[in-house]
Amino acid sequence: MKTTIIKELTRIELKNPILIEGLPGLGMVGRIATRYLAKQLKAKKLARLYSPHFPYYVLVNKKGSVRLLRGEFFFWKNEAGENDFIFFTGDSQAQTIEGQYDVAGCILDFAEKNNVKTIVTIGGYRKEVEKTPRVVAVSTSPRLLNEALKAEALPSSAGNPIVGTAGLLLGLAKFRKIDAICLLGETRGYLPDPRAAKSVVEVLQKMLKIKVDLSEMDKEIEKSKEIVARMQEIEKRREKYAQKMRRVEEERISYIS
Amino acid sequence: MKTTIIKELTRIELKNPILIEGLPGLGMVGRIATRYLAKQLKAKKLARLYSPHFPYYVLVNKKGSVRLLRGEFFFWKNEAGENDFIFFTGDSQAQTIEGQYDVAGCILDFAEKNNVKTIVTIGGYRKEVEKTPRVVAVSTSPRLLNEALKAEALPSSAGNPIVGTAGLLLGLAKFRKIDAICLLGETRGYLPDPRAAKSVVEVLQKMLKIKVDLSEMDKEIEKSKEIVARMQEIEKRREKYAQKMRRVEEERISYIS
Amino acid sequence: MKTTIIKELTRIELKNPILIEGLPGLGMVGRIATRYLAKQLKAKKLARLYSPHFPYYVLVNKKGSVRLLRGEFFFWKNEAGENDFIFFTGDSQAQTIEGQYDVAGCILDFAEKNNVKTIVTIGGYRKEVEKTPRVVAVSTSPRLLNEALKAEALPSSAGNPIVGTAGLLLGLAKFRKIDAICLLGETRGYLPDPRAAKSVVEVLQKMLKIKVDLSEMDKEIEKSKEIVARMQEIEKRREKYAQKMRRVEEERISYIS
Amino acid sequence: MKTTIIKELTRIELKNPILIEGLPGLGMVGRIATRYLAKQLKAKKLARLYSPHFPYYVLVNKKGSVRLLRGEFFFWKNEAGENDFIFFTGDSQAQTIEGQYDVAGCILDFAEKNNVKTIVTIGGYRKEVEKTPRVVAVSTSPRLLNEALKAEALPSSAGNPIVGTAGLLLGLAKFRKIDAICLLGETRGYLPDPRAAKSVVEVLQKMLKIKVDLSEMDKEIEKSKEIVARMQEIEKRREKYAQKMRRVEEERISYIS
Repeated sequence: MKTTIIKELTRIELKNPILIEGLPGLGMVGRIATRYLAKQLKAKKLARLYSPHFPYYVLVNKKGSVRLLRGEFFFWKNEAGENDFIFFTGDSQAQTIEGQYDVAGCILDFAEKNNVKTIVTIGGYRKEVEKTPRVVAVSTSPRLLNEALKAEALPSSAGNPIVGTAGLLLGLAKFRKIDAICLLGETRGYLPDPRAAKSVVEVLQKMLKIKVDLSEMDKEIEKSKEIVARMQEIEKRREKYAQKMRRVEEERISYIS
Repeated sequence: MKTTIIKELTRIELKNPILIEGLPGLGMVGRIATRYLAKQLKAKKLARLYSPHFPYYVLVNKKGSVRLLRGEFFFWKNEAGENDFIFFTGDSQAQTIEGQYDVAGCILDFAEKNNVKTIVTIGGYRKEVEKTPRVVAVSTSPRLLNEALKAEALPSSAGNPIVGTAGLLLGLAKFRKIDAICLLGETRGYLPDPRAAKSVVEVLQKMLKIKVDLSEMDKEIEKSKEIVARMQEIEKRREKYAQKMRRVEEERISYIS
Repeated sequence: MKTTIIKELTRIELKNPILIEGLPGLGMVGRIATRYLAKQLKAKKLARLYSPHFPYYVLVNKKGSVRLLRGEFFFWKNEAGENDFIFFTGDSQAQTIEGQYDVAGCILDFAEKNNVKTIVTIGGYRKEVEKTPRVVAVSTSPRLLNEALKAEALPSSAGNPIVGTAGLLLGLAKFRKIDAICLLGETRGYLPDPRAAKSVVEVLQKMLKIKVDLSEMDKEIEKSKEIVARMQEIEKRREKYAQKMRRVEEERISYIS
Repeated sequence: MKTTIIKELTRIELKNPILIEGLPGLGMVGRIATRYLAKQLKAKKLARLYSPHFPYYVLVNKKGSVRLLRGEFFFWKNEAGENDFIFFTGDSQAQTIEGQYDVAGCILDFAEKNNVKTIVTIGGYRKEVEKTPRVVAVSTSPRLLNEALKAEALPSSAGNPIVGTAGLLLGLAKFRKIDAICLLGETRGYLPDPRAAKSVVEVLQKMLKIKVDLSEMDKEIEKSKEIVARMQEIEKRREKYAQKMRRVEEERISYIS
């Protein structure tokens, strides 16, 4: 495989589709949110993206078979609303600089071909989150940005970088006259963070006028809280030990000098 | 040289050939097993693969000549059975991400051209092996997987990654309607591990209904045992020293603080 | 995006244009000087350069929108003089070896198309600067070099490397019969260094017979002095601490041995 | 610049030319030997090789101009002998894996075009040299290897890797029916090593039946001896200090434990 390819699994006419993208990244926020939406809406398989810029391993699945790392497009026919949806998520981001631009370009090729006029990308935003994580929005379209702010997202301060596919899609979409918005859930980023993903999903529900059941996500959040608590316990002990070592070292120095 | 190339050394009509692949990797399991089979079966040279993604050095041979790093295809006419064999082994895996996908693609081009319908790839699986190493199997074909399990291979748990050519060949073979199975011998992985390779060969013999003399491999295993014993001795001493150092450090701390 | 591209924003006939280039690099000297000149001369947007060799993130701007990293061409119609100017600056240099050569080649394609016969590149030159930073000049044209020396630039000693776009443009311009000169402001290089940039601008003013108000740059210099003072304070304390640690260690050794 | 290119500076008919290659590498042996031969024989400029795989900087020359890193071909009309010579040396080797294969391929394109049937590559071979450095030879041609051994070169043991252009040229020349030999001067490799280069030149003189004055090289050797002596002095002190530190540490441990 020499180039990034997209394999279509089905052909379907979509009504003013909006593309929602979320790949692994900070706190896995994009991937968790996008997968959750696709699953709850019972979105169906549309296409797969393979790339020689993905890591060079395969994953074993439950049936003892394997598959290449890939990106996956799903679609959802939104009978009640004006826009159908395409979801894009996957196993990995591209691993090289040039690969990142290439994969983002291929996603946009597919979006254009399916007549997508609006893209939502989802990611994480590193922050020491105290209570409920907030959602930061940036957009190439003042209209979209405004809708996000109405849905209680916050504007971003200037100068912030948005790294990876979630960012590049916005930057590159401009050249194709596709409006795009990026929603970033605040997260410490160390561990998969369903709490941040939930905040993003809540903003998206308001913006896109869709409704999904969030109870499954709340279960994920409960599970992750236990993990976080254990991790913090370990960190605390490590910090305590480091402090002790520093004190010892300082005493030794003051004693000798 | 700008692209991966395959130089054919001979043209031969092969009967429903099965491709068996094993390159250097964890414990050298794939390379040892594949070379051993090719040698014992007196397989003959078929083709060579050269790639600008291999390391940029040449190797000196016994006659004082040199050669590029390469992959080698051998063939064996299996007069008694239904399938002839093609073996593929070599000096190195590709050194870049894109190179890994490219080399795997070229191997599959060659397989397709030779009408290969089944591929077996061989690798190592990191594990603290106690007694006889076991063999883990994954396959894109339930039929092949079943044959491996009957030959006493174990199924893999889901989520495991299979890194490098042994994995990518399976992932990419699907696109070409070629069935493929990967056999992974359990190995600590630090040193060439003929014991793990032997386990794989034993599974393969049952699966493929071939019979090779394993006495040469037993000699290799004896030799490697001595090396492993020496290495473990060194590791033990290192660990003992590290423990002593930790104790000293702890005493010093408790003394000062 | 698979290749470096230049998007023209306007079409304009320029009179014997001189290209002045300054990208981020040592002390940000090139970028600061080039931006300053373009701003003071009220240069107008001409074109933008995008590249898959730039880092794979986008930047948030003041309006909450984002944009790809890019290079920017500006032009200035120099009514009083013989040469109009094109300025090129940007967010980043290319991140890979091959990318550096590619981006420099694309800049030269654009220069040729606009009939540029002279290029000035600006960068930093690492040195412990005491008083006013001096400017070092190298050129593929003895005539240009001479003009720079008359404008109080210093010649460079042989063997010095000039890294990145500022250097490659000179090396590659030769193949296109374009004269080029590189002006390097002396800088410690750790922090954005408007003082070094000012020295370069002063040389450029004399060479190119242009006149810009430098008072804004002096304000930048005042601000940066405070930052530098704070940084030096931190460095001093660090060095003092390191010395103390070394003394302690030496005493301990002489005591024990 | 997107690909490696060769710019011819002159067109000349050469008589059964032999290509002698030596680029920077271990102990700079190849570059020193090749440059020395070209200089002593008053070889003339033939062509230059530029590549986007070379480091991305330019070098300042004595006249205050700059130039890209490059490879240089020189030729020498050998009136008395059967073979003219082409020399190839340069500033750098390619910096990426794929770049190494590409540059070696371009050198061979040029060799083929000039009807070269024999290539000699020169490099260094890491060894703690006691007295006069010896020269190790490997060749794709038994005839050439034999000539080198008669000229007092040593055969190489099997399995040795020859890294970089000096090795790849041999490996790739085979595909073009060009005989090639590599001569490796024994060197510690840390510093430019004219002594190792001289040993190679002496072997080459015998093999190629040419005669160059070596007195200039002896001067280089004298100069380098001083540098080596100073370096060794520094190393000795460092080692002594490290030993002392280890003793102190051991005593401390035995004291506490």
